[in-house]
Amino acid sequence: MTMSKYVISLGGNALGKDPQSQKDLLKHVSLAILPLIKEGHDIVLVHGNGPQVGMINLAFNESNSTPLMPFAECGAMSQGYIGFHIQNALINLIEKEKLNRKVTTLVTQVLVDENDPRFKNPSKPIGSFYSKEEADELAKSLGYDMVEDAGRGYRRVVPSPLPIDVIEKESLLALLEKHHIVISGGGGGIPVVKNDEGYHGVDAVIDKDFASAKIAEIIEADALIILTAVDHVYLNFNEPNQIKLEKIHVDELETLIEDNHFKKGSMLPKVEACISFVKKSGHKAIIASLDEAYDAIVHHKGTEILPR
Amino acid sequence: MTMSKYVISLGGNALGKDPQSQKDLLKHVSLAILPLIKEGHDIVLVHGNGPQVGMINLAFNESNSTPLMPFAECGAMSQGYIGFHIQNALINLIEKEKLNRKVTTLVTQVLVDENDPRFKNPSKPIGSFYSKEEADELAKSLGYDMVEDAGRGYRRVVPSPLPIDVIEKESLLALLEKHHIVISGGGGGIPVVKNDEGYHGVDAVIDKDFASAKIAEIIEADALIILTAVDHVYLNFNEPNQIKLEKIHVDELETLIEDNHFKKGSMLPKVEACISFVKKSGHKAIIASLDEAYDAIVHHKGTEILPR
Repeated sequence: MTMSKYVISLGGNALGKDPQSQKDLLKHVSLAILPLIKEGHDIVLVHGNGPQVGMINLAFNESNSTPLMPFAECGAMSQGYIGFHIQNALINLIEKEKLNRKVTTLVTQVLVDENDPRFKNPSKPIGSFYSKEEADELAKSLGYDMVEDAGRGYRRVVPSPLPIDVIEKESLLALLEKHHIVISGGGGGIPVVKNDEGYHGVDAVIDKDFASAKIAEIIEADALIILTAVDHVYLNFNEPNQIKLEKIHVDELETLIEDNHFKKGSMLPKVEACISFVKKSGHKAIIASLDEAYDAIVHHKGTEILPR
Repeated sequence: MTMSKYVISLGGNALGKDPQSQKDLLKHVSLAILPLIKEGHDIVLVHGNGPQVGMINLAFNESNSTPLMPFAECGAMSQGYIGFHIQNALINLIEKEKLNRKVTTLVTQVLVDENDPRFKNPSKPIGSFYSKEEADELAKSLGYDMVEDAGRGYRRVVPSPLPIDVIEKESLLALLEKHHIVISGGGGGIPVVKNDEGYHGVDAVIDKDFASAKIAEIIEADALIILTAVDHVYLNFNEPNQIKLEKIHVDELETLIEDNHFKKGSMLPKVEACISFVKKSGHKAIIASLDEAYDAIVHHKGTEILPR
């Protein structure tokens, strides 16, 4: 059997709101990808960190005795926290199954462009909800961009710039050479911009699916697999005229995007990340549910996005 | 010139109390080890995390909206946080100097023995200070071991078991093969014990110097270097009869330990870690100040601990 290289992007639903639930959920994630590990494929796991990075940032905000923690640093903490739980769950399963695979989590900086227009238009809501008065105070005292979020109160929004490069890509490649399962680019990576003094962290959150596509491009993956809560990409999702997409070519998908078929902040970035990888690599991308990860990769379940 | 492999253990004084001061201090650390990087030596950096892991734990304790965060998870967060800052400072300096070296931070689990007698005798004070009433309440509600700490109030104490193995040692070895500078075992490593279900995190803090000695043993380092706030190990430190130790053999040092020359929780674990490495490896260990790191390694500054 031919070994393949896969980048698997794990959505927030695969992780937990607190340490114990996260450990429990990650046992499930490990079982879902076990068949791929058994077959010996190379795997890079990229995970989201939305709720976790918000939780970490909030803890430092609410605590009276600790300093405020910038977003880049909170992202780095979330990589340690989630990476530990993923590598622990995988190693425990690998040893139980008497397989010979190693697992490594890399603290990963991802380069973004400080002139990315997305910096001028902060769009990613993060952290806790505030009243209008609190929001105004935060905007004044800390310079935060605050927006009203779907009737639930005010939240800080940060920019979500596009990933340009992975600073630690050589580490990723070195470990893949040894067939390690690598956890990298967690939460989309720690966002850094470059100036005369070098790289430095910025208040931003990189979309983890775009980071996955960039990593898949760097390691020359055979497929990018985005795992989410739904089993396929749908048109008119949950409506009587719902259509399941099983195989679709990038140009058809681009037409559907132009026709506003996919929701911003939900399916749109996933679909865009897939298109980016497929166009650059000539390989396929897959959007599928966590539970059907193996079948999606091996038996064409899920939505396959194919090059023209 | 012969290339050597060094494990360098960085004390808390090399890190910071808040994100900005940590970034500033780590520029200084990077400059201190730059000559070793220029000469092409292999380097593994192990850092402490006492104040940082306490800060993270405290933020979650004091925040009203976030779950409590167990110590293993706080340790994992501190590895992401400090690792990010160290690798960022090193990469910026390496690129400025146009050197061709890569830097990688590994999230590192370290195995301890659940039957280690040190689990029965929690000794490492961590986190914030409490009143007697608060301490009693924490002991009752969360089962914490609380002790009075030097007149400054009550603090939680956790066990400090000895490191037995590094779970991610193959990752460390793979990256050293490629001459990456590796940051591993931060804060002594995330402490895990093993049972029928695999490895799981425990409420403990492994001494970072013992973890450094274990890592030095695993990678077959040519020397273990413990960097601290003083330039040498002294007898009768800061007293009129102070004696500077320049070269000392392990058996002589063991005699000095028996005579209670070194303070628990301060110089004693450093000296014991050095003895452990030197006896197992037949190579030397060095205790020196951060600023004299290079001279200590190359020009015999600092205290050299030699095999018999």
